[in-house]
Amino acid sequence: MNMPRSHRAVFMKHALELAAKCHETGDVPVGCVVVKDGVVVGQGYNTREKEQRVTGHAEIMALNDACSNLGTWKLDGCELYVTLEPCVMCSGAIVNARIDTVIFGARDSKAGGVRSLFAICEDPRLNHRVEIIEGILKAECSLIISDFFTSLRLNK
Amino acid sequence: MNMPRSHRAVFMKHALELAAKCHETGDVPVGCVVVKDGVVVGQGYNTREKEQRVTGHAEIMALNDACSNLGTWKLDGCELYVTLEPCVMCSGAIVNARIDTVIFGARDSKAGGVRSLFAICEDPRLNHRVEIIEGILKAECSLIISDFFTSLRLNK
Repeated sequence: MNMPRSHRAVFMKHALELAAKCHETGDVPVGCVVVKDGVVVGQGYNTREKEQRVTGHAEIMALNDACSNLGTWKLDGCELYVTLEPCVMCSGAIVNARIDTVIFGARDSKAGGVRSLFAICEDPRLNHRVEIIEGILKAECSLIISDFFTSLRLNK
Repeated sequence: MNMPRSHRAVFMKHALELAAKCHETGDVPVGCVVVKDGVVVGQGYNTREKEQRVTGHAEIMALNDACSNLGTWKLDGCELYVTLEPCVMCSGAIVNARIDTVIFGARDSKAGGVRSLFAICEDPRLNHRVEIIEGILKAECSLIISDFFTSLRLNK
């Protein structure tokens, strides 16, 4: 389902609220929701430090939550909203899950697998292609990350 | 720790035994072990169909098992043995986990993220590089996959 821009901002706002939960645990604040037919079917936020688990990224948490809720690993027909550009691991998981569309807020110039360093989700050699929409609530999504790293430096 | 070739075959044999467990569930047979200082610290096999979870690949199961056992998401000093070349998702997870060395058996020409389609683990733009050793027990690792797809075709 192709969401109008205003709906996209609502779901990205939800992802930002999830990202804010990371402040309690010292994790880089990233939040993610998976949406099907206008309904949130999966959600997650970064818990890598909290759980000491390498796959604790927000997107993986949200994808697995959606798999549990829908009872299938095939998430075609779903959109994934995430505050920060997915890394290579998460980009690969998004392709594997056959997500229709990824909507992200801010780019990750050091590790981004969707636009910044790679274009995993649009690679014609893989068995699935994902539509990419970037820049939804970009200012807020950039700010939550830069605030985190600023306070990390100040606390050192 | 740099393992001699004979030790590598022992750990790949272990990964093959794990892969064989997939036959019970209809999953593509792939097995994986994570080794630190000559000791298995994590293991897993593909459970994507069984669990209907997109991250159910053998490497992700073994990495998360190692994180649980070692109490950290940083798996530096570890080797990862896997029967089939890792996909993009798993290659990204391996880099994120800071694995020292990946040893794989057979290439995956359609989805391989380490050699066949991408060279994720050796990309100089990412914040960690992984040594790659391929072809350990290649014949056995190829056979378990080709047997699986042959029987799948015969059963259709």
